[in-house]
Amino acid sequence: MKFLLTNDDGIYAKGLYALYEELSRIADCVVVAPETEQSAIGHAISISRPLMVRNARKNGDNFGYAVSGTPADCVKIGIIELSGENIDLVVSGINRGANVGINVIYSGTVSAATEGAIMGIPSMAISLDSHDKDADFSVAARFAAKMARFITGHKFFHGIPLNINVPALPEEQIKGVMVVKQGRGRLVESFERRLDPRENVYYWMAGETQFCDLEEGQSDCTALKQGMISVTPIYYDLTRHDVLPDLDKNLCAYLKNNQKGKRSKR
Amino acid sequence: MKFLLTNDDGIYAKGLYALYEELSRIADCVVVAPETEQSAIGHAISISRPLMVRNARKNGDNFGYAVSGTPADCVKIGIIELSGENIDLVVSGINRGANVGINVIYSGTVSAATEGAIMGIPSMAISLDSHDKDADFSVAARFAAKMARFITGHKFFHGIPLNINVPALPEEQIKGVMVVKQGRGRLVESFERRLDPRENVYYWMAGETQFCDLEEGQSDCTALKQGMISVTPIYYDLTRHDVLPDLDKNLCAYLKNNQKGKRSKR
Repeated sequence: MKFLLTNDDGIYAKGLYALYEELSRIADCVVVAPETEQSAIGHAISISRPLMVRNARKNGDNFGYAVSGTPADCVKIGIIELSGENIDLVVSGINRGANVGINVIYSGTVSAATEGAIMGIPSMAISLDSHDKDADFSVAARFAAKMARFITGHKFFHGIPLNINVPALPEEQIKGVMVVKQGRGRLVESFERRLDPRENVYYWMAGETQFCDLEEGQSDCTALKQGMISVTPIYYDLTRHDVLPDLDKNLCAYLKNNQKGKRSKR
Repeated sequence: MKFLLTNDDGIYAKGLYALYEELSRIADCVVVAPETEQSAIGHAISISRPLMVRNARKNGDNFGYAVSGTPADCVKIGIIELSGENIDLVVSGINRGANVGINVIYSGTVSAATEGAIMGIPSMAISLDSHDKDADFSVAARFAAKMARFITGHKFFHGIPLNINVPALPEEQIKGVMVVKQGRGRLVESFERRLDPRENVYYWMAGETQFCDLEEGQSDCTALKQGMISVTPIYYDLTRHDVLPDLDKNLCAYLKNNQKGKRSKR
């Protein structure tokens, strides 16, 4: 098997290397990752600037390709140009910090997995619920290997990227695995206003508090809080299908009335 | 009423100004937009660099706030910091080029509307199906005003951003308005490999061909092709709800078997 590995913390991040070490036991791993941190880059792609690609070394060995772009760029160029042959699985991570709730929409880690699915390759994103610089990624890496075997062995899920979050706990304290929906927790931002040395105004986005109150039922967010690994199937169809009929009815009626109004004014 | 206007083509883009002129007839419009083009930036936000904010002028008048960030940044800082009071509607656009199909996921224009909804403000994104530098935005701008009145008057749709695409046709040739799902059309990329003057390899993303073949039923993509305006309700819950039960069943079975296998090996 051949896996494409990427992340949004940058090619030298500890979480990516833990993933590489563990997944290399079950597959050839091609690493194509951003050369610098790309957190909160979402599903950005580089259409108006070129992508520089250079070989990245780790411990003296060739480790992978460092790309001057976003995680989604890395998946595109990795699959189309750099990997040489068919990729069986795209794995993005291991991210430093959980990707749960509404915040998933900002996540470069998850977007890389989504990009894999858009390109027809089975894919998953995996994150560790810790921002600690010394965090231990080994439990998450071992679970990634397990999930890699699950996904590659289950054709039904090949078009569906999986978003996985692992609590930062010793393996024996993890209570289990829960398949759950994306929750409603989100960052609540504030802005700090400052002046630069030339008295120009600038702002820092701050106040990043997350909450998973008011959840209806279990979610990625509540699962993590309970010490469970969360697994969420995600998708790139953003349509709010359930409101299509209502919107259709209301908008048609509105436009009809509005049209008449306009005509009578003319 | 008070509207927050933004876009991803940058604060001096023609489409944003057309929107401003038209919507100013029905509301106070606060413009908070990226100072440079941010196409394909997706839902990126700026968490590791500060946002510079300066007043932008147009035709000698104060026109709005130019922000050194992404469309989602503009909506956040616009609502929290710059607009001064309650915003009734976030309008993002008018984008140069359609935002339909899977490509919606890369769109800064649509992400700005999604951000509005996440922050609890009714919102819409509007795009014109033309990349022509001399494109006429007036038809789309008038339709934006119509939709602005519709959304602000229908509380039911306040949590649901609407993604609107307008054909680049004279008003009398537009065949109608269609409420449709997001289609499956997407960019099919290729990469052009080049060498810089110092013989370093770099790549340009190219080959941006869109298709809406193989659509099941009508979509934003097919509607536009037929000369209709498309209106698509979108959402920020990426959960693939329909596969939750199957994934749960299959993954539980797999993990149970795998656990046993592991134990017996030890």
